Amino acid sequence: MNGWTEEQISRAGLARLFEASDNVGFGLVAAAGPVEAYRIATGVSSAGPSVQRALFDVLESHGHEMRRDALTEAITRWSARWDTLAPLRDLETVRRFGGTLLTPESDWWPTALADLQLSEPLCLWVRGENPVPIPPQNRVVSIVGSRDSTSYGENVTGALASGLVGRGFTVVSGGAFGIDACAHRAALKIAAEDNPLPTLAVLACGIDRYYPAGNEGLLRNIAQRGQLISEVPPGSSASRYRFLQRNRLIAALSAVTVVVEARWRSGALNTAHHAAGIGRSVGAVPGSVQSPNSAGCHRLLRDGSAVCVTDAAEVAELAGPLAVEAVQKRAVVPALHDGLTVEDLLLLDALPVRASSTVDKLASVAGLSIAGVLAGLGRLETDGLAQRGDGGGWRKRPR
Amino acid sequence: MNGWTEEQISRAGLARLFEASDNVGFGLVAAAGPVEAYRIATGVSSAGPSVQRALFDVLESHGHEMRRDALTEAITRWSARWDTLAPLRDLETVRRFGGTLLTPESDWWPTALADLQLSEPLCLWVRGENPVPIPPQNRVVSIVGSRDSTSYGENVTGALASGLVGRGFTVVSGGAFGIDACAHRAALKIAAEDNPLPTLAVLACGIDRYYPAGNEGLLRNIAQRGQLISEVPPGSSASRYRFLQRNRLIAALSAVTVVVEARWRSGALNTAHHAAGIGRSVGAVPGSVQSPNSAGCHRLLRDGSAVCVTDAAEVAELAGPLAVEAVQKRAVVPALHDGLTVEDLLLLDALPVRASSTVDKLASVAGLSIAGVLAGLGRLETDGLAQRGDGGGWRKRPR
Repeated sequence: MNGWTEEQISRAGLARLFEASDNVGFGLVAAAGPVEAYRIATGVSSAGPSVQRALFDVLESHGHEMRRDALTEAITRWSARWDTLAPLRDLETVRRFGGTLLTPESDWWPTALADLQLSEPLCLWVRGENPVPIPPQNRVVSIVGSRDSTSYGENVTGALASGLVGRGFTVVSGGAFGIDACAHRAALKIAAEDNPLPTLAVLACGIDRYYPAGNEGLLRNIAQRGQLISEVPPGSSASRYRFLQRNRLIAALSAVTVVVEARWRSGALNTAHHAAGIGRSVGAVPGSVQSPNSAGCHRLLRDGSAVCVTDAAEVAELAGPLAVEAVQKRAVVPALHDGLTVEDLLLLDALPVRASSTVDKLASVAGLSIAGVLAGLGRLETDGLAQRGDGGGWRKRPR
Repeated sequence: MNGWTEEQISRAGLARLFEASDNVGFGLVAAAGPVEAYRIATGVSSAGPSVQRALFDVLESHGHEMRRDALTEAITRWSARWDTLAPLRDLETVRRFGGTLLTPESDWWPTALADLQLSEPLCLWVRGENPVPIPPQNRVVSIVGSRDSTSYGENVTGALASGLVGRGFTVVSGGAFGIDACAHRAALKIAAEDNPLPTLAVLACGIDRYYPAGNEGLLRNIAQRGQLISEVPPGSSASRYRFLQRNRLIAALSAVTVVVEARWRSGALNTAHHAAGIGRSVGAVPGSVQSPNSAGCHRLLRDGSAVCVTDAAEVAELAGPLAVEAVQKRAVVPALHDGLTVEDLLLLDALPVRASSTVDKLASVAGLSIAGVLAGLGRLETDGLAQRGDGGGWRKRPR
């Protein structure tokens, strides 16, 4: 049908009937497959005993108890949306926007989403002028944070996003004001012309909508040079529930979720908890303890949910072994006195800077034997730390 | 002898012969007791086979291998300082400064120092006009950090020290410029007149010296209203080695060591590692990732050596269960929609703010059954979240 598979058409329809993470609905798809699930959810066929049992088993295996009339109730609930169904129209809409519908049956389906288990999305509406698969999670980092960002948060976000795109990562965020917008913008700015996917915005509304309206220009840019994706069909509006559910997709697509700025209560913390819940790494950027915009980050650090990250190299390190070397380099600038024994350190401390000192005096000041002082002076002289002064005494060598 | 015990006189002498953590010297005191150790270290008596064996056992039990001639070598080393010995003069000096010499034999000896094992100091020279015992470690917090502090670090230090003294803690630091000085000053400033020990400075030089000279006024104030303590005898000067050794005392005296600001390499990190090494809690204050003065704190947070702390309540929580309640209070300010079921959250999201909506419309928008919408509206109305609009429809209740 116009090049769409039966699974795509069925999942497109189901995406309009079921809210994200509707356990009975998602369980029905797992139990009966998308095509039969769509027939059942729209009242075209009824669920036989084997489907009922499979649904019961699916829900139970995910820790959900299923009431006897749960499916009947669900169908009643879904029926309120039957007259909004027009999957082919929705599919044509996304095609018109230069996009497509990814489903778990597609080659390009991001397998990382399977970690969401029963909450794995039914499908992803994808809009991007340059069709490429979403990279595997170890090449994807999400950067999230407050809408009311500070200039500190914006600067850090820009540096992180640039550094990550420069290292070949795709930067995922939510397309919102503040930290999200900064992350997308910096990713687009640094990306080479031929970078197929510097950034990707996961929306809580349909991919044909520009929400928030103030980000329309940015979202258009992302659609041109990156991708907009959503699990809700074109035309859908965002709601608080959908924002919270959307956050699980940001977390699941990425190896690392970095929270740059977040208040004590913040949606970004919800994304971080989703990430931690499915075993993804979480990074939090520290900031002033006097800034309410960093209180949520400090909360994550304090309760152990997140690792402290201060630059792109540290984030990359969390994503995997690829970029580890860059981080460790910083630790190895040695101080002059590194590697000295306690005795030599005592002797070095005892050496005068200006005048010079006798071996006897050095033994007393440093608390070493004469023999110890002589041996130590030999080593310090070799290391360029001590030198013979006028009249045969010893002193520190000027640096 | 002028009211000093034989142990005090011997340890006073040994403190001049041995640098801190001189393994053979400290082991000799453990093996033979301070009085006999002093006689051996000064060549008055020689170590018989039983003392030699005991010394070997002490060192071995602490993981140090003892060479055959180690004691002979050590005595040669110590002999270079024999002519500086004047323990009674040193004891009279500390008495003249209104202080005393604490030894492990004293009732007031801080037992927390025993956690340093073989590096437990030989004695503590204490100077304070108001003689009181050092509180047990669970009432002591140390605050340390860079000498080249920023105004951010100084503000945070002031708030932490004030908050901790206000909660009954003694604030320990090292009497240096920067963070140390701020911690002492804030502790003195907030302390009630009758607070016997708001703050305590552990020095790397003798307690009769004002080092750094620019802190003389502050150190005098601490001696008046708090205490100056040191393991090195009066007249001793500070050295790099003594600073590093001094840090172990700061760590051991305190339940928590807080690093407020520290560069990537900093003496404060040395104190933090001493603390972690003997199982004390370490807190690090986060700051701007763009400030080199916070890089050391972030390093501690990142490698898991420290817990993120942002205020005095969180530090107090690390010190023990006493002040925990104060911290947890902050987390329980509920948002309006906390505790709603998924269905009620979907319904709340679907309710219009201005116009009103029919039950049928709400069922479609929220993806709920008619019965579900009616039940949910009842709950939301009770919670003050929904209200009946004009014409029988429903809308959100303005907040």
